[in-house]
Order: sequence, then C-alpha cells, then structure tokens
Amino acid sequence: MSSADNNGLRDLPGGVLAPRGFRAAGVSAGIKIAQGQLDVGLLVSDRPASLAGVFTTNAVRAASVEYDKQVLRRGAARAIVVNSGNANACTGSQGHRDTVAMAAAVAAALALPSSEVLVASTGIIGESMPMDKVETGIAKASASLGDTPEHDEHFARAILTTDTRIKRAAVEFELAGTTVRIGGAAKGSGMIAPNMATMLAFLTTDAAVPPKLLQTALRRAADVSFNRITVDSHSSTNDTALLLAGGAAGNRELAADSPDLAVFFGALERVCRSLAGQIIADGEGATRVVEVHVKGAASKDDALRAARAIADSPLVKTAVNGGDPNWGRIVSAAGYSGARLDPARMELLINALPACRKGQRTNTPKAKLAQEMAKTHLTFTVDLGVGDECETVWTCDLSREYIAINADYHT
Amino acid sequence: MSSADNNGLRDLPGGVLAPRGFRAAGVSAGIKIAQGQLDVGLLVSDRPASLAGVFTTNAVRAASVEYDKQVLRRGAARAIVVNSGNANACTGSQGHRDTVAMAAAVAAALALPSSEVLVASTGIIGESMPMDKVETGIAKASASLGDTPEHDEHFARAILTTDTRIKRAAVEFELAGTTVRIGGAAKGSGMIAPNMATMLAFLTTDAAVPPKLLQTALRRAADVSFNRITVDSHSSTNDTALLLAGGAAGNRELAADSPDLAVFFGALERVCRSLAGQIIADGEGATRVVEVHVKGAASKDDALRAARAIADSPLVKTAVNGGDPNWGRIVSAAGYSGARLDPARMELLINALPACRKGQRTNTPKAKLAQEMAKTHLTFTVDLGVGDECETVWTCDLSREYIAINADYHT
Repeated sequence: MSSADNNGLRDLPGGVLAPRGFRAAGVSAGIKIAQGQLDVGLLVSDRPASLAGVFTTNAVRAASVEYDKQVLRRGAARAIVVNSGNANACTGSQGHRDTVAMAAAVAAALALPSSEVLVASTGIIGESMPMDKVETGIAKASASLGDTPEHDEHFARAILTTDTRIKRAAVEFELAGTTVRIGGAAKGSGMIAPNMATMLAFLTTDAAVPPKLLQTALRRAADVSFNRITVDSHSSTNDTALLLAGGAAGNRELAADSPDLAVFFGALERVCRSLAGQIIADGEGATRVVEVHVKGAASKDDALRAARAIADSPLVKTAVNGGDPNWGRIVSAAGYSGARLDPARMELLINALPACRKGQRTNTPKAKLAQEMAKTHLTFTVDLGVGDECETVWTCDLSREYIAINADYHT
Repeated sequence: MSSADNNGLRDLPGGVLAPRGFRAAGVSAGIKIAQGQLDVGLLVSDRPASLAGVFTTNAVRAASVEYDKQVLRRGAARAIVVNSGNANACTGSQGHRDTVAMAAAVAAALALPSSEVLVASTGIIGESMPMDKVETGIAKASASLGDTPEHDEHFARAILTTDTRIKRAAVEFELAGTTVRIGGAAKGSGMIAPNMATMLAFLTTDAAVPPKLLQTALRRAADVSFNRITVDSHSSTNDTALLLAGGAAGNRELAADSPDLAVFFGALERVCRSLAGQIIADGEGATRVVEVHVKGAASKDDALRAARAIADSPLVKTAVNGGDPNWGRIVSAAGYSGARLDPARMELLINALPACRKGQRTNTPKAKLAQEMAKTHLTFTVDLGVGDECETVWTCDLSREYIAINADYHT
C-alpha cells in the first residue's frame, strides 16, 4: 500500500489520539434525530499546532468550509469542533454566523483565540443549525476532553452520519532518530448520504512540521487517497480534511530539504489511504470493494479519466454487485471516458485473470472469471495500450441497498 | 416541444413507413435467447436515397459503426439491416467480416450494390455473431418486405433489446406546397442494458434532400434530442442514428438557401425528440421522467454541464425515485459540475414551485414539494445566477428495478 515501509513504519491502534499532545471528546447533543447518538466531536492540541487543510471543490460550499479556509491562511490552529446531523450548507449568512458562533463557543470554553478554532459540519443540507443544542454540546464536549482510547473512539463516532462503523488509522515511525506518530479519523459513506453529507477526515501528528510542508504533505496524501475514491460520483458541499501537527514528539522541525520528508509523506499517505479504504468498504449499500487500476495510458490525466469512468459507471457497479464478469461494460466505460486508447490493444485483468486481450474476449472460462467477481475485494487492471502512465481509483458496488438508503429516506 | 408547429405540421401514426417509398420487415432468426422474438429488421428505400448518420463517440466502437461511417462518405444508401441480440462489438477483424457479410447478404437478396447497405447491431458485447442465424434471418426478412402497418411495427419490434415497448414517431407537413413526411423508429432502455447495448434510431423521409443538408439536419436534431438524454451516463459502443431521404413526395430538392429548410429541421427535431422522450420513459426500471432545465448560465457549455451533472447524479435520481424533494442534492450536483455559478443567487423550481431561492430553502411547504415530486413527469428548473444561457437534458429515476435488471442478469 505504501513505499514507506521503512524507517520502522508500523501500524498503531486508535486514531486522532495515537499521537501525543492531543485530547478529544465525542458527546450527544440531540442534533441527530436518533436518540443518544454522539453528534458533537472536539479535538484539541495541547500546544499551538501547524495546520494543513484540503476542501471540497464544489462551487456550493458549506459555511464551515469557507470559514476554515480563512483559518488555514494563518497555518496554525489549536482545536477542531465537528457536528454531525446538520451540514450547515445552503444556509446563507445565518449559516456563516452559526459557524463563527461554534468557533467562539469552543474558544470561550477552552480559553483559546477564536481564530485558532476550526469547524466542520456534516448532515442535512439547507436546514438551520439548532444552535442551542450545538452550543450545549460544545460545553459538554469541552468539559469531557481526555486522551484515553475511549475519547479517541468517541470522537471518531461523533463525526459519523450514515456510516455503519468508525474509521480510524494510526502509524508510528522514526524521523531522524525521533519516534513520531500520525493518526486520523474519518467519516463518509455516500459522498452524500440520505441528505446527510460529506467526507470528513481529521488527522493529527506529534511531529513538528512547518505549515507549508504540512500543507504539501496533506495535499499529496489526499490526492492519492481521498481524491481517488468514489461511492456515487456526487461530491459534497462539505468535504474537509484537516491535519494538525503539535510537535509533542520533540523531533527537530522538518525542513524542506530534509531526506526525512519522504518518510513523513509516506507515513501520512499510509494513514490517508487506510481511511479512504475504510470509507469505500463502508460505502452506502456496498458489498464489494473494487480497485480500478488503469495503465498503458498516454498521460496521468487520461489514466485517471478512464479509471473514474469505470469506477462511476452504474453498469459496471451493478455488474460487480451481481458478481457478473461483464467485461464489455468495463472496456466500453474506458471507451467513453475521453481517454486516448487503442481498442485493438486494450487488455483487462479481473484480479489475475485475463478477461479481454487485444480488445476481444479471452478463452478464460466464464466460470473462473465469475469466481473472481464473487470475491469481496476485486482488482480491475485495464491497459489502454497507448502509453506508460497509470492511475488507481477505488470504488464499491451499486446495490439495492443503496437505492433503499437514498430513495426511501425522506427529508 | 417544437417551434415548427406551422406549415401544417401534424403527427401521424406509425414510424419508418409513414413516409412513402419505403418497405420494411421484422423477423425472428433465433439470435435472441427468448424463443420467437423478432431480432432481424430490414428497411429498404424503393429509390436511391440521400443518407445522413450520427454515431457513438465512444472510442470502443462496434464493427457496424465503423462500417456505416464508410458508407456515409458516399451520402447515399438503399437499405438498412439491423440485428438485435448481439452487438458485434469487441469482436476484432472477425466482427468486421461479419458486418460486411451482412451487407453482402442483403445486397444479394435485393439485387443492390453492397456499398448501399447499412448495418446496425445491438445486444451482447464481445461475443461472435451467429452468422448462420443472421443470414437465414436476412433471407427471411428480404422475402417478407412490405409497407403495411404490420411491417412498420415488426421492424420497430425487431430492433429492441431490454425495451419494454416499441418507439415510433412520424409527422407530415408542407414543404413549398408539397406534402412530405418524416418517420422513425428507435430502441434504447439503458444506454447499455444487461449486457445488451445501445440507442439506435432509424429515420425516413419522402422529401428530397441532398446528403449534405440531410446530415446537417440530422446532426442538429440529434443534438437536441438523442444527445440530451441520459438513463445511466454509460454511452454505448453501438449508438447509431440513420436517416434516409427517398424523395417519393416529389418536392423540389431542398436547397441550402431555402426558407423551407427551417421547416424541415423543425419537423425532424419533433420526430427525434419524440423518440428520445420515448426512450427515457422506457429507461431501465424508470418510473418517472425528469426534464432538467438549466438557465442563467455563463455559456451553453456550462448550462449543459450542470444539467448533465444533475441528470446523472445517482443521489438526484434516487431522490426522484423516492419522490423526495431533496433540493440540496440538485443544487450540489450543479455545484460540482464545473459550471460557473453564484451560490448566493441560485434558484430551483420543482415544476412550478420554488424549492430554493438565493441559494437557500424557500418557505414552500415540504408537503407541497413532495406532491410535485410524486408526479410521473417532473421539471427541475435551475438558475445558476450568472448569465443568460440555457440547456435542457432529460433523464429518468434510478430504481431497485434498474439494479435488478443490471445486477441479476448474468452474461
């Protein structure tokens, strides 16, 4: 999964609290309809932390996204407050005021400058925030901060919407002789779930990394993880990934010319890929995870275009759901992607078995291909036959359950 | 539906045989698995006819598409043979030879030059054509050509795959004092159905129109009809629309500077839009038809991009299926389309009711919006708030039945 399996990189249990110097909480404030569900999360760095963030490219953005982009300009933050159950998107100037009020409430409770508090929201679009509940939740969360495994889990749970399970990852590795950690928690099930929204990821590290390098690292890691997954091709108004670097590990601050930079990049990539994989596996109604690997492309863009077309095709996704080795759908999706390809040289492997060679069917028995398609983790390797570039995208199948979740739910 | 409701434009029953000077047949050749289903269609012009054609833009194209493009260069043809049940796509050089053999079989049976016979195929991808059956079918069809309403219907039926009903349209109108007709038949249910494929349309007219003008007319009409519909965003390897102009009406051949050109364009548009609408209404698993009208765009391209993003979003389509006025999904799909828009000025009407204004919810009661969403024909009018351009796309809902058709079917 990563080129960074050196420098003693090893997985750790837990998420945002795996690195030292952070506290967290997850509480129930009654924002979600279901009684007693955790819906306000709070993550605090004990020290001033470097900040990196990447956000949705949707032109329709939630209030919190616009707000966080302002905070990001300073490159430093102390706390992140998250609510689930309401996206605070398409809510106009009142929405903006509510986001500012959430930051102010955290700042007041923790005696921090309001400008160092980030806000993230996920849930229903177009509804006013129930600010009484939110502010009560913030007070409760501020009072219950801690750094135990329970706090780590409660935070991870408070950010969920239609997710069926929490999503966490953490690693430990050496940076110039100092042991440092990176951890994270994420949510996301549909890119937009039943009128709930969004992919969120919150990442922490106890390494000392200046904001500019941290931003480069997060953008790079997001590009090969969160930006390479698709459940339903519908990108959200609220997508947010934030990374806080507190420096509690005591390493010498990473420099742009340090050979250790690649190590840090690799470790962050590993955590982000793990979280992205967990999101796909928990995609709405998903029963199978599919890795779509396109190679032989004329350019990276072409490879990505073809991989996305395959991963987003409802016909490919329903074939995966039915366990049907319907390779014509995969090849024809690459065909309409706009990527340059040579139909007479195209190849397709389903896991290790050739399903299409030189643009035509192979003599692999259909029963053998069907056996591969029945596995819960699938890889489609598509060769476009015109170059040397490759890209990978992860997706899941499209099931009746997806329709049930998204059609039967009413706003 | 059209600006051409003048010159006495009126709808006629029937399809490809509504214009004079054509004969057709539809027979069963055993290509489809189900016993006795019609699967070979033949359409013949009594006179040499001008020819126009538009084809899939998929880089992976069926043998018949490549072949027809060659025929189109001459701008004239006499016959079209169509088989359903096998797409003859991803079949390499053998596929090409089979297409040529189909044309040759028609030419031999009807004593025509092979270069004036067009071929279209639709059905399973990547399987060899059962040429014995196909050639027997062609002989049978050639022997049973006729111009009765039954022949018209049999042809329309022979081109279907997962379609649940035939799709035909025809009009009559005056061209400089001469009564002329345009008719057509189409198939298409998924852009690719259960390993079946394709949108096909076959159009005839008894007007005399030179090939170049005919091609302009067909391209224009296809652009506002077949190219504006989406069932599942998966474009086929075999999409083909062909138009034959035989001239039996006896009008003076249309000239490029004739004021009647607009009348002919309008009438052809009407037929193509009718067929496109019938395809959407019969989309796999469809229970509702949705017209997505985007206005206030900075450019036509932007309007189309936003309309397509909305029409292709599985979350919008499942909301339509569930009858849920989930306007956040519609607005956010426009948001990620790449079209320029002003979130603070966006508006959305569901039929005539405002659901979103200035980027926020309106006070239209949710129950009233839900009533509109429950109708079988819906219009979403989305104003991007930045310009004056508009575009319209038609789509259908995404239902459990779509999953059933496409996941449970096995190749």
